[in-house]
Amino acid sequence: MYSIDRHQTIINRGLKEIEYPEQPTDLYQPIRYFLAIGGKRIRPTLTLLAAEMYDCPLERSLNIALAIEVFHNFTLLHDDIMDEAPKRRGQPSVHEQWNTNIAILSGDTMLITAYQLLAKSDPAILPSLLATFNRAAIEVCQGQQFDMQYEQQDLVTIEEYLGMVRLKTAVLLGAALRMGAIVGNATAADAEHLQQFGINVGIAFQLQDDLLDIYGDPKRFGKQVGGDIIANKKTYLLLKAFELAEESDKKELKRWMYEEHDPSEKVKQITQLYDRLHVHEFTVKAMRSYTDTAFTALDRVKLSHPKKEPLRQLTESLLVRNS
Amino acid sequence: MYSIDRHQTIINRGLKEIEYPEQPTDLYQPIRYFLAIGGKRIRPTLTLLAAEMYDCPLERSLNIALAIEVFHNFTLLHDDIMDEAPKRRGQPSVHEQWNTNIAILSGDTMLITAYQLLAKSDPAILPSLLATFNRAAIEVCQGQQFDMQYEQQDLVTIEEYLGMVRLKTAVLLGAALRMGAIVGNATAADAEHLQQFGINVGIAFQLQDDLLDIYGDPKRFGKQVGGDIIANKKTYLLLKAFELAEESDKKELKRWMYEEHDPSEKVKQITQLYDRLHVHEFTVKAMRSYTDTAFTALDRVKLSHPKKEPLRQLTESLLVRNS
Repeated sequence: MYSIDRHQTIINRGLKEIEYPEQPTDLYQPIRYFLAIGGKRIRPTLTLLAAEMYDCPLERSLNIALAIEVFHNFTLLHDDIMDEAPKRRGQPSVHEQWNTNIAILSGDTMLITAYQLLAKSDPAILPSLLATFNRAAIEVCQGQQFDMQYEQQDLVTIEEYLGMVRLKTAVLLGAALRMGAIVGNATAADAEHLQQFGINVGIAFQLQDDLLDIYGDPKRFGKQVGGDIIANKKTYLLLKAFELAEESDKKELKRWMYEEHDPSEKVKQITQLYDRLHVHEFTVKAMRSYTDTAFTALDRVKLSHPKKEPLRQLTESLLVRNS
Repeated sequence: MYSIDRHQTIINRGLKEIEYPEQPTDLYQPIRYFLAIGGKRIRPTLTLLAAEMYDCPLERSLNIALAIEVFHNFTLLHDDIMDEAPKRRGQPSVHEQWNTNIAILSGDTMLITAYQLLAKSDPAILPSLLATFNRAAIEVCQGQQFDMQYEQQDLVTIEEYLGMVRLKTAVLLGAALRMGAIVGNATAADAEHLQQFGINVGIAFQLQDDLLDIYGDPKRFGKQVGGDIIANKKTYLLLKAFELAEESDKKELKRWMYEEHDPSEKVKQITQLYDRLHVHEFTVKAMRSYTDTAFTALDRVKLSHPKKEPLRQLTESLLVRNS
């Protein structure tokens, strides 16, 4: 049975060993702090797993994996400023612990650091790595911009929401896998299938996160039940409810969204409405559809089943968190 | 006689022709707006000039030059947020015209765009271009961090100030020239000399800017005379004055720095003190020293004199602005 522990250890050690100049302290301390806060290291693990599928040694794939993780953390650091989030994984965010200017500049430095890590790769594959990485990086910024816009917007369609999720979250998982495939000298077709696997799994992950807000075990996921509902966050569930609801239900939903004095009643009422509209089932169905597309793409990768097992097992272990 | 006009036209057209996706508008409009505000385009011109010295055709060097200019504008855009600057070249800064979040994210996108432009280069020189670019990019961030720190600090030495100027301003001019040399297939020694030329000229430019705050013609430079003095900006002049002043002069300087009601009297008094301490002469001397080092490096470049003339003439035209 595949366990992510070994890869997490390798990645955490690699992140810790990135060398920075001594000075200025206020530029590099926040980076070290933020990278040490943790996280599941899914994206760099995907890169390492894809490379291993093609028997690529770790010393060739590790810096690419680290580049992906440093980039991902750069986006989190800047997103925290934009979302005015005081915490990241239970710890003060960088703009809280230091200040906004330091958070902007440390984030910028992380983005450049990601390119420095990438530039250590074999020159023969550098153009191809850069093309994949640059495109995903731009798309992640687009996704964040759409996300901020949609928060201000009254009407967001399911299609728009899924497009945003694809950009903000899913394309980086796809790029992580494709870059692992590239360093492993996979065929162009295999690299494409692995990327599609990553993108579709990424969307499924987000739908699952949306579901877990209500239907997850708060003890297991460490999040308040209904946090998204209380914050009126535009999730797949909320948008689906609006899509499915008749006029009277829509009115009720809007009325509860304005509720500010009794959050637990708000969560209860909106959850009941979701249940009445079968939002849970619709979301699970959408999730399955993306998962199916993902695994179909993985099936098309021209490698033996055992080679693909770790990636399949990792994905499945991440997808059954709500069972 | 060399004139920068032709290169500026090429660069401005190149910047205008960079293609962005249609959506999201709020991500790409600020980038187009900021890149269209203008500027002298010195850095990309240096890249094109260096490349031309080695008979490198424009189609090989242009994207590298554009990458440098887009990167430079990314730093200006983020610096404007950090410095809370309402204007950039007389126009509202991006965080004023839109908002801070959009300014952060547009800046991030510009940094990635710079790498996209760079990635269009010949794969054979890509690792070398990236190494130069990444290092300069990191150093520019370090310089900005030192600059912010020094603004909060009571005592800053001339050495620290020059170190900051080197990082924040000069290394990018050096990198611009080195990258032009790289795409022109210059020898390693020539590339190094050109880089040193750029770094030393860059420091001289900053010292000149510090001088022009007081001794420049406001009609020609469009800046308020003594703006740096009024803002207590730590310039070479102020730090040199503190270095040279006896206790009593130091006290007077500090007293005038606290003056807030009569800015023109403040400028007058501090300028008189500078004159008494011969700060102007010391600054000109330092400037000449960096310029001499620069031109000695240029002399070492193994090309005929006529090949180096445009670069020499451009630099000299930029250095005699205060005459």
